[in-house]
Amino acid sequence: MASLSSWLPIPKSSHFSLANIPFGIISTASKSTPRPAIAIGDHVLDLAEFAASGAFSSLNIDTSVFSKSTLNDFAALGRPVHRSVRQYLQDVFAENTSVAQVLKSNNALQEKALIKRDQVTMHLPFRIGDYTDFYAGKNHAFNVGCLFRGPDNALQPNYTHLPVGYHGRASSVVVSGTPITRPNGQTLDNPAATPKVPVFGPSKRLDIELELGAFVSTPNEMGKNVNVADAADHIFGYVLLNDWSARDIQAWEYVPLGPFLAKNFGSTISPWVVLTDALEPFRTTGIKNDTQLLPYLQEKDEKNAYDIRLQVDITPEGKPTTNILNSNSKHLLFSFPQMLAHHTIGGCPMAPGDLLGSGTISGLEPGSEGSLLELSKGGKETISLQGGVERKFLQDGDTITLYGVAGTEETGLVGFGECSGKILPAPKLF
Amino acid sequence: MASLSSWLPIPKSSHFSLANIPFGIISTASKSTPRPAIAIGDHVLDLAEFAASGAFSSLNIDTSVFSKSTLNDFAALGRPVHRSVRQYLQDVFAENTSVAQVLKSNNALQEKALIKRDQVTMHLPFRIGDYTDFYAGKNHAFNVGCLFRGPDNALQPNYTHLPVGYHGRASSVVVSGTPITRPNGQTLDNPAATPKVPVFGPSKRLDIELELGAFVSTPNEMGKNVNVADAADHIFGYVLLNDWSARDIQAWEYVPLGPFLAKNFGSTISPWVVLTDALEPFRTTGIKNDTQLLPYLQEKDEKNAYDIRLQVDITPEGKPTTNILNSNSKHLLFSFPQMLAHHTIGGCPMAPGDLLGSGTISGLEPGSEGSLLELSKGGKETISLQGGVERKFLQDGDTITLYGVAGTEETGLVGFGECSGKILPAPKLF
Repeated sequence: MASLSSWLPIPKSSHFSLANIPFGIISTASKSTPRPAIAIGDHVLDLAEFAASGAFSSLNIDTSVFSKSTLNDFAALGRPVHRSVRQYLQDVFAENTSVAQVLKSNNALQEKALIKRDQVTMHLPFRIGDYTDFYAGKNHAFNVGCLFRGPDNALQPNYTHLPVGYHGRASSVVVSGTPITRPNGQTLDNPAATPKVPVFGPSKRLDIELELGAFVSTPNEMGKNVNVADAADHIFGYVLLNDWSARDIQAWEYVPLGPFLAKNFGSTISPWVVLTDALEPFRTTGIKNDTQLLPYLQEKDEKNAYDIRLQVDITPEGKPTTNILNSNSKHLLFSFPQMLAHHTIGGCPMAPGDLLGSGTISGLEPGSEGSLLELSKGGKETISLQGGVERKFLQDGDTITLYGVAGTEETGLVGFGECSGKILPAPKLF
Repeated sequence: MASLSSWLPIPKSSHFSLANIPFGIISTASKSTPRPAIAIGDHVLDLAEFAASGAFSSLNIDTSVFSKSTLNDFAALGRPVHRSVRQYLQDVFAENTSVAQVLKSNNALQEKALIKRDQVTMHLPFRIGDYTDFYAGKNHAFNVGCLFRGPDNALQPNYTHLPVGYHGRASSVVVSGTPITRPNGQTLDNPAATPKVPVFGPSKRLDIELELGAFVSTPNEMGKNVNVADAADHIFGYVLLNDWSARDIQAWEYVPLGPFLAKNFGSTISPWVVLTDALEPFRTTGIKNDTQLLPYLQEKDEKNAYDIRLQVDITPEGKPTTNILNSNSKHLLFSFPQMLAHHTIGGCPMAPGDLLGSGTISGLEPGSEGSLLELSKGGKETISLQGGVERKFLQDGDTITLYGVAGTEETGLVGFGECSGKILPAPKLF
């Protein structure tokens, strides 16, 4: 695959090569109304201005979606529209195409619509109706199961038959850069003591979860399911997701109905949504599932995962940054189309802007585990950082940054930029 | 408390006496735009028309909220506004008040705004951002715990320390009258067999859950909590809630992250939202909690529950209706203000229109259990219905109707009308 080259200078190392064209919601100092944009190298293209100029007139699409404050309406137009818009924008920025003149030689439009990326504020890309978090990272599920139940019973009997998932909290999904306040809550000082009497205070085992998130585009009616073969067409695109978790709150609260306050104080996503089409070249096999699946989960193509290199860095307040883990999004037992097919098999209606999380993505090698719980062996071992710092779990002032990127500089990187959040101290309540 | 009497004939048996004034969203054959209304006896008052006539001019409020298609913006104005609007509308309909003339002697406005209740279509009252289901019905939790773990371990150690809850699915909350499609899904034919291999098909153990739901009015910022003493002011009002449940799907899927597809195929609410103020006269004590609660859950007033008589009827297709259970909303271990205080203690942001479910409300007497799972002792006993019909769980064509009402005919009933849904067969997929 040869790299597309652009008349606009795009650094080789940029996540936002011409092969990417991710969508997000921006605002600027001069115009505070949030509106859609794409990222391209060190720039963004303001799609509201671009559409207003008539530059989409050659495509037969409803351009009013580009004057909305979220991507919901654009996503609802369906994958063929996303595809044609992306391809058209690639042509607009590519060298030596007939439509390149639309922007290249139009200084007035460049002035209005082409903005340096460091000049924009990013917003949540979607109005998220519902957020569902799956648990398809089998290595993570196994690692955590071992900590709690030992290796023989680490995975529950249902685990390989269906993508285990649960409903998350949509209202606390925030865009990269939003600070995360450490939650107060009930925990057990000594989990082994009886009777079990909880204490109140800030979580002492605040953790990260490295995940991939997918945004739904086209809806399904309540009572109707989405076939697994069609499910990829119902996915607009992907983001990085840090599903912050308070392990001590979780351990006390989660029986019998699952995690609740341990998860709903904040979940951070990267601001640029990488389209399903942009990830097509990076399809690969996921974790092999030896279980005979029921027909509604059977996929024809074995390459149902993505080869996206994932990285997590930590920066304690006033200290240097340390890379604490490196993983890959292929370490999933179920694909996103399988997750969506399962989610709807009983008739649950999905809407544009619904968010699906993969579950924590851990590799098999040491240093590829997607949570501090795993890296610190349940809080028993310390993790050494640059600058003589140690961690088991997060401390106030720590900044966590997720990165994800596919492809090579030669053919153009397809990446997510960064997904970061800084921990603020818990409020003092009692 | 003497009954308020109205110049408008209100049947004594109506749930919508002058003491109630519940809010909902209506449309009509002549005007399909959904808009706010109140129910009063056999009528509704179209608040869009009423506001447009200037009839709210004596109240200093933003009446644009009455031209919206949901109650979200009205709820966001806060409890003092809900209170003054309700009181004003009581005065408008009461006999011998100075403002009664606003409508009583204005035939043109009556023509436009006063509509027979059987002429309106009801819609979801709120755009529901997030739906959370609690598990505060202690008798239900105990009954179900006994079925699964025996009476000694029926309740988990955390149960009396915090209102156990989990995130539900907002997109499948529907208004009374919407049919519910039986879900397909994975179940175990023989749960005792090993290895556990699921089969696919329609749920065979489709159940109801009798609950009370509360809608949030004023929001809290992410990272900030709502104090339990202030929490009642953050609740707009209450509805009946049937949290339909597929027990066989639930049993297989729910470890370790909680119920998912077993619950997200549909949850039905009653269309009229009874304001927090309307239920004030019916405050009573709930289930006594002998556990010393942490300060953030301690309430001053022991009367933190409501005395609302609850009833569930079943009508199999072409058969007579049978009343299968009678309960009372006071059978809760935690109050809604405690649920809201707990929900936000870690900083989870709540928004106007968020829905909180109580959990299944079972009494202690036989026939007061709030689910078929309990009434049939886990499916071991049959429930005899009128017309020679028997049930353990729901069959296709069954209609379930929930009722809830407080007060007496003498002082005016404060009720919810009905909350009903009919079961449609599962789609044939494979």
